[in-house]
Amino acid sequence: MKVNGVEIEDTFCEAFPMYFGRVLITAVTRRWALVAALEAKGLGTSSTMKPKAPGEAGIECELKPTETPDGRPGQILLIGEPTVEELEYYLIARIRKGVVPVPTTATFDAMPKDMIIDYVKVEGTPIQLFGDGYEELVNIYGRDVYKIPRMDGFYYIDTKFGITKGIGGGHFFILAESQAAALLAAEVAVNAIEGLPFVFVVGAYGGGPAASGTKVGGKNYKKVIATTNHLYCPCIANRVPDTRIPPDVQCVYEICIDGLTLDALKSAIKEGIKAAVRVHGVKKITAANYGGKLGEIQIRLHEIFK
Amino acid sequence: MKVNGVEIEDTFCEAFPMYFGRVLITAVTRRWALVAALEAKGLGTSSTMKPKAPGEAGIECELKPTETPDGRPGQILLIGEPTVEELEYYLIARIRKGVVPVPTTATFDAMPKDMIIDYVKVEGTPIQLFGDGYEELVNIYGRDVYKIPRMDGFYYIDTKFGITKGIGGGHFFILAESQAAALLAAEVAVNAIEGLPFVFVVGAYGGGPAASGTKVGGKNYKKVIATTNHLYCPCIANRVPDTRIPPDVQCVYEICIDGLTLDALKSAIKEGIKAAVRVHGVKKITAANYGGKLGEIQIRLHEIFK
Amino acid sequence: MKVNGVEIEDTFCEAFPMYFGRVLITAVTRRWALVAALEAKGLGTSSTMKPKAPGEAGIECELKPTETPDGRPGQILLIGEPTVEELEYYLIARIRKGVVPVPTTATFDAMPKDMIIDYVKVEGTPIQLFGDGYEELVNIYGRDVYKIPRMDGFYYIDTKFGITKGIGGGHFFILAESQAAALLAAEVAVNAIEGLPFVFVVGAYGGGPAASGTKVGGKNYKKVIATTNHLYCPCIANRVPDTRIPPDVQCVYEICIDGLTLDALKSAIKEGIKAAVRVHGVKKITAANYGGKLGEIQIRLHEIFK
Amino acid sequence: MKVNGVEIEDTFCEAFPMYFGRVLITAVTRRWALVAALEAKGLGTSSTMKPKAPGEAGIECELKPTETPDGRPGQILLIGEPTVEELEYYLIARIRKGVVPVPTTATFDAMPKDMIIDYVKVEGTPIQLFGDGYEELVNIYGRDVYKIPRMDGFYYIDTKFGITKGIGGGHFFILAESQAAALLAAEVAVNAIEGLPFVFVVGAYGGGPAASGTKVGGKNYKKVIATTNHLYCPCIANRVPDTRIPPDVQCVYEICIDGLTLDALKSAIKEGIKAAVRVHGVKKITAANYGGKLGEIQIRLHEIFK
Repeated sequence: MKVNGVEIEDTFCEAFPMYFGRVLITAVTRRWALVAALEAKGLGTSSTMKPKAPGEAGIECELKPTETPDGRPGQILLIGEPTVEELEYYLIARIRKGVVPVPTTATFDAMPKDMIIDYVKVEGTPIQLFGDGYEELVNIYGRDVYKIPRMDGFYYIDTKFGITKGIGGGHFFILAESQAAALLAAEVAVNAIEGLPFVFVVGAYGGGPAASGTKVGGKNYKKVIATTNHLYCPCIANRVPDTRIPPDVQCVYEICIDGLTLDALKSAIKEGIKAAVRVHGVKKITAANYGGKLGEIQIRLHEIFK
Repeated sequence: MKVNGVEIEDTFCEAFPMYFGRVLITAVTRRWALVAALEAKGLGTSSTMKPKAPGEAGIECELKPTETPDGRPGQILLIGEPTVEELEYYLIARIRKGVVPVPTTATFDAMPKDMIIDYVKVEGTPIQLFGDGYEELVNIYGRDVYKIPRMDGFYYIDTKFGITKGIGGGHFFILAESQAAALLAAEVAVNAIEGLPFVFVVGAYGGGPAASGTKVGGKNYKKVIATTNHLYCPCIANRVPDTRIPPDVQCVYEICIDGLTLDALKSAIKEGIKAAVRVHGVKKITAANYGGKLGEIQIRLHEIFK
Repeated sequence: MKVNGVEIEDTFCEAFPMYFGRVLITAVTRRWALVAALEAKGLGTSSTMKPKAPGEAGIECELKPTETPDGRPGQILLIGEPTVEELEYYLIARIRKGVVPVPTTATFDAMPKDMIIDYVKVEGTPIQLFGDGYEELVNIYGRDVYKIPRMDGFYYIDTKFGITKGIGGGHFFILAESQAAALLAAEVAVNAIEGLPFVFVVGAYGGGPAASGTKVGGKNYKKVIATTNHLYCPCIANRVPDTRIPPDVQCVYEICIDGLTLDALKSAIKEGIKAAVRVHGVKKITAANYGGKLGEIQIRLHEIFK
Repeated sequence: MKVNGVEIEDTFCEAFPMYFGRVLITAVTRRWALVAALEAKGLGTSSTMKPKAPGEAGIECELKPTETPDGRPGQILLIGEPTVEELEYYLIARIRKGVVPVPTTATFDAMPKDMIIDYVKVEGTPIQLFGDGYEELVNIYGRDVYKIPRMDGFYYIDTKFGITKGIGGGHFFILAESQAAALLAAEVAVNAIEGLPFVFVVGAYGGGPAASGTKVGGKNYKKVIATTNHLYCPCIANRVPDTRIPPDVQCVYEICIDGLTLDALKSAIKEGIKAAVRVHGVKKITAANYGGKLGEIQIRLHEIFK
């Protein structure tokens, strides 16, 4: 199958269930909302440094003042973890470290009601306890929120954040004739996905493409969670007999996408691929799978284009 | 004591020893180096979510292509943790999650030789193991580095990163007549500190000032690491008999600074204060201390200005 | 009349007819489209250096790849001049100097059909002549466009750009107790207006508020087009007997807005004022008029809020 | 001659004398200084829309607060025109339209004394007249400056700006196998030049490379100032018998540089070329000349590398 003359391999990306929160950060200006979102999404590019590091996070979109509870500019942040327990911990940690310190911020739950399967509660966490008894539970903007004293005024945060079960590990690979072509195609693909609903490119902000594609476990090293996807490294293709790199390919980037729903994720993969193949020098689009070791969700590239 | 007509309180900021790495991130363009540095510094605003979250991190300065080992644009990232053990873990985690995935990046130790007291070794960490045996130890740019295959080419990283013993918790408070004045003064102060050697404003990038000043432990809540510094919250001054907020103050921001040396930290505090007091509406500069519960280092504001 | 407790003076802003083009700039990535739009909007803050300088210009909004003729990211640029003849000249000049040099760009007319009263034709201008006979007239994306060879490929541009008759000089003044409060309120107001349809804040991009409010002609100097609006300068209030500055005001910014329609302009002024008055320290909102010397359009602030 | 394996053609770029001002813009924060500099440099990419449009302009570098007369963050803006008369007009126009409206700005002459051959005087221009008699001539920061009332306070500007005779039209061409490779190499080259003293890349800010390389006059069209450099357009190489495009080249970008001195310009060209040839896919570096029709200054590429 070809799209815009570029071969789309008949394979699937192997994905897995992941738990997500959808957090709205508002602030007095667009700039401060963005500063908070960027800090809160930091170290959000992979889940391979567990258990003492956060999982994945990214910015879904920007909201205008007319679209937020408090009438201020906002950023929608998606936070994903492999388990509900980890999400409970790191959703709070990301807000505590990334949002609470940033001037004028507030934080609201933005998960659509019909997608919620559970909640992260703020009560008893370092965010509520930060108030040291000076915080209050109030109803404002039609919501129950904590009103917590901060040096620059009160910080408002919803009392609970909806959790949904979504998908991690969505992705596709861009194989190109040169690093420059792969890099440009990757940026073009990320631009096409940014702002689509309920998804984010893992690693994106002014960034996005992943150079460090991984495989589950190791071939030579044992007891490792993830190692370089040696089959897709052009720079060692001559040392890897079963390399998947065609002769005319010098560089590969992975566009890794998390989605709250399978449909949203498929749409994002489709838009990303359609954009990437428009760049001259892109030779092939494919995806990686690991015999089910990573996850049981299979997203077939050809089906996306039906 | 007054600077530019603004009272500098005769007090000290209570600081503590912290362990730091100084990491140079290079990439093919300035933009990609910055994307990596921003991701790697994420969640770098406080150390209060221990033990399962990283400590502090920030960008010290940008390097030109002529100033880096590989002749490419670079960013100097400082990474700080309360203990050497935590630094060993999170320096690697920040690089693994923030730098390794970003296209075209490389990573070098930038700690001056005479400041090094120990090393974080890359051997045996998830970064070296990422190579899955395909990595090599080579000498390039006059350094011993790992050459690790990635999908977009080889990733180069020094084999070890120097650790120095520096200072965390350096800070000053800006007390102002309004949120707007405090916010502008804070941005002006951060601008004055950005780029100074061996320091970073905790939280800074397009950001910087901390709204969530904390005290050690709680007054009303027990068994908590840190809670809101209620003495410096104007919004609850009427409920706090021993409030430190003068009647004409409505907003406070903390400029929190980490430094690799005491001299660098003092210079940064001085430049920051000098800049902040130029903003009309700033009423007072002070600092917080906690009877030694936070740390034994005392930086007296008045001494800085001698 | 008060909004959020802040007095809105019962006055009107004096505005005038202006002619506008609405130009879509696309490029391979969001970043290059923005680079082109920023360069093309440059020197777009006032019309007071006539006849040898361009008039006004600003970015209305960003378009996603799915919203543009060529499926690439885009920016909508509005270009305004006092006369059709000047618009014919400077619309071409802004595209020739701001867009044509920027890698991978294309340029399309984005004026809604029912708003067009005339056209700027590309034929015979330095843009068409740039082709030196190697350009072709082709039909692509369902449009007649010039296909002009550039060193990085073909540059596509519509053969004509719709002109509409809109309004220049829309504005309001923010009077505040301090520079910091005025500056923050101005940024908040600009944030509320950015992205609204068919308008732009004159001067905005990462900017917006005007410090240099002007009056028509001079009081002391003759034969000048425009001079400082001395009635609204707090810094000389003590030298101006008929100053309009209340005793508690130290700083004023003007939010100057151009609009393709009166309704769009009124909505923008309303949203901007509503946002500005939320900032603590804002004392009054007003507008300026010049006895009809500037223009015959009167936009009464109180009517906007009915 | 080869640099990093890429052929540098034995030719010269044809340049010409140009007159420049070197203007320091300061503001309360880095952000506002940058907003002003970007607006003031707008439409600064070429001199081909004369006589009713400005010439060239670009940002040389950023200054820290400690490096400016008023102790605030600054940006150095270079403004170039073909004649002293045009520089007198457009230096004032760029400051009047790009800097005066931007909050908190001030403007100082930054031309080194020993490079000055003449001055642009502010007296009698729309900037001084803007004061409408309320302005004063004062001595501050050890300089004679106008103190002009603006709505947000006084605007300070030096009474005169030094002019130097420098060089316009410095440049080199990057010929590459693909658009992606040319684009990446161009960005890399611009990154290497940014911040070098006394030069700027024409068109640069987050941008830089020129797609629309021009030749003097036209081949098919007469009475035109400049048209597409058809000899260097790969997209029409098959229609141009004397094309200079090698068979393996698909895209060309020009890095166009203005310099206050010939040495500064040569250094910038050298650094730019050295950076560009590191990008895989770059096939050739060359430059354009027009039999002396553009200018009498010849900068031989091979001499630069001696």
